[in-house]
Amino acid sequence: MTMENMKKGLLLVISGPSGSGKGTLIKRLLELDDSFIYSVSATTRAPRIGERNGVNYYFIDREDFEARIADDMMLEHAEYCGNYYGTPKKEVNENLAAGHNVILEIEVAGSMQIKQKCPEAVLIMITPPDFKTLEARLRGRGDNVTEDVIRRRLETAKVELSKLGEYDYIVINGENMIDDAVHRIMDIVIAEKSRVSRANEFTKKFFAE
Amino acid sequence: MTMENMKKGLLLVISGPSGSGKGTLIKRLLELDDSFIYSVSATTRAPRIGERNGVNYYFIDREDFEARIADDMMLEHAEYCGNYYGTPKKEVNENLAAGHNVILEIEVAGSMQIKQKCPEAVLIMITPPDFKTLEARLRGRGDNVTEDVIRRRLETAKVELSKLGEYDYIVINGENMIDDAVHRIMDIVIAEKSRVSRANEFTKKFFAE
Repeated sequence: MTMENMKKGLLLVISGPSGSGKGTLIKRLLELDDSFIYSVSATTRAPRIGERNGVNYYFIDREDFEARIADDMMLEHAEYCGNYYGTPKKEVNENLAAGHNVILEIEVAGSMQIKQKCPEAVLIMITPPDFKTLEARLRGRGDNVTEDVIRRRLETAKVELSKLGEYDYIVINGENMIDDAVHRIMDIVIAEKSRVSRANEFTKKFFAE
Repeated sequence: MTMENMKKGLLLVISGPSGSGKGTLIKRLLELDDSFIYSVSATTRAPRIGERNGVNYYFIDREDFEARIADDMMLEHAEYCGNYYGTPKKEVNENLAAGHNVILEIEVAGSMQIKQKCPEAVLIMITPPDFKTLEARLRGRGDNVTEDVIRRRLETAKVELSKLGEYDYIVINGENMIDDAVHRIMDIVIAEKSRVSRANEFTKKFFAE
């Protein structure tokens, strides 16, 4: 099969509120198909116990981070609770060129920066099937948080999901349906690679014959 | 899984030059998955031996066809070699409402009419992997045509493929790769049903909770 158009990887932006199950879903995707690669973010926050540099995050200091922003080395970045988080550009570009489908697990604000800078990126929002499920998942985590925290997380989820219209795809991650959601993302990747808008190389070659 | 957004079927426009193998591909799709339904065209040309009314075409007379055009009962229509060909609107709409994915096997001119009238339609172009394969397929049909006819068919194929930019997806139907092409179309259908632009009902319901 002549697949020149399929060589370059896809840039996949995966977002979803806390409780959407996006973390587990991404883990499963990475296990199932080695065309996927996870983009490790950089952050200025201190590593938590068990977190490793270059695996969970690149842990760098504030001065370093700001220098990288100034040098346009970040594909996107945002500040939460006084710490920077961002996506190193060089690694992403190298992985895409090598044919990997690069997964960015980022919040809505960062996604909007990616959408502007890389219009070819595919934005996927992971959602629970309904708010009742989301609430049950947040309460069932057993991390002993107060009612106030639960309510704040639910409000944040509503704000995040209100940006759904800016995304390309919605993938519903229902109870015990994670494989379904994982395969749906795989189907989206295959379909996106067949989009005429990505097929320029192929068409040029075809008409040159 | 909450799938309100998946109830309505997709309108799939499948085009491809003579020699692309789109006929076999569509036949396979219909056999494999009963969510697909083939839209039978209407025509004013006389039935060929073995063709059945309502299966291959709806065979109607010229006066009837023109009355249907005047009454806006055709989703698209075109005239070839002095005969009308067109897609009856009512049947398509009923099948879509019933949740079927309706396949229209039509030429580029008709596809452009569908694209204008039904912007939610998904346009797929089936192509051979290259012109050499296309030529070999056209010559290998054993229908004893002259070199002139072969050349004319190749020229027509080039004109049709030059409209690729108006289509959403390109599916390459390589030698002995028909199952690959069939599954690619299935993946496109699943991905399209996850598009945020089709998910209005779901989102409305989500935010109403």
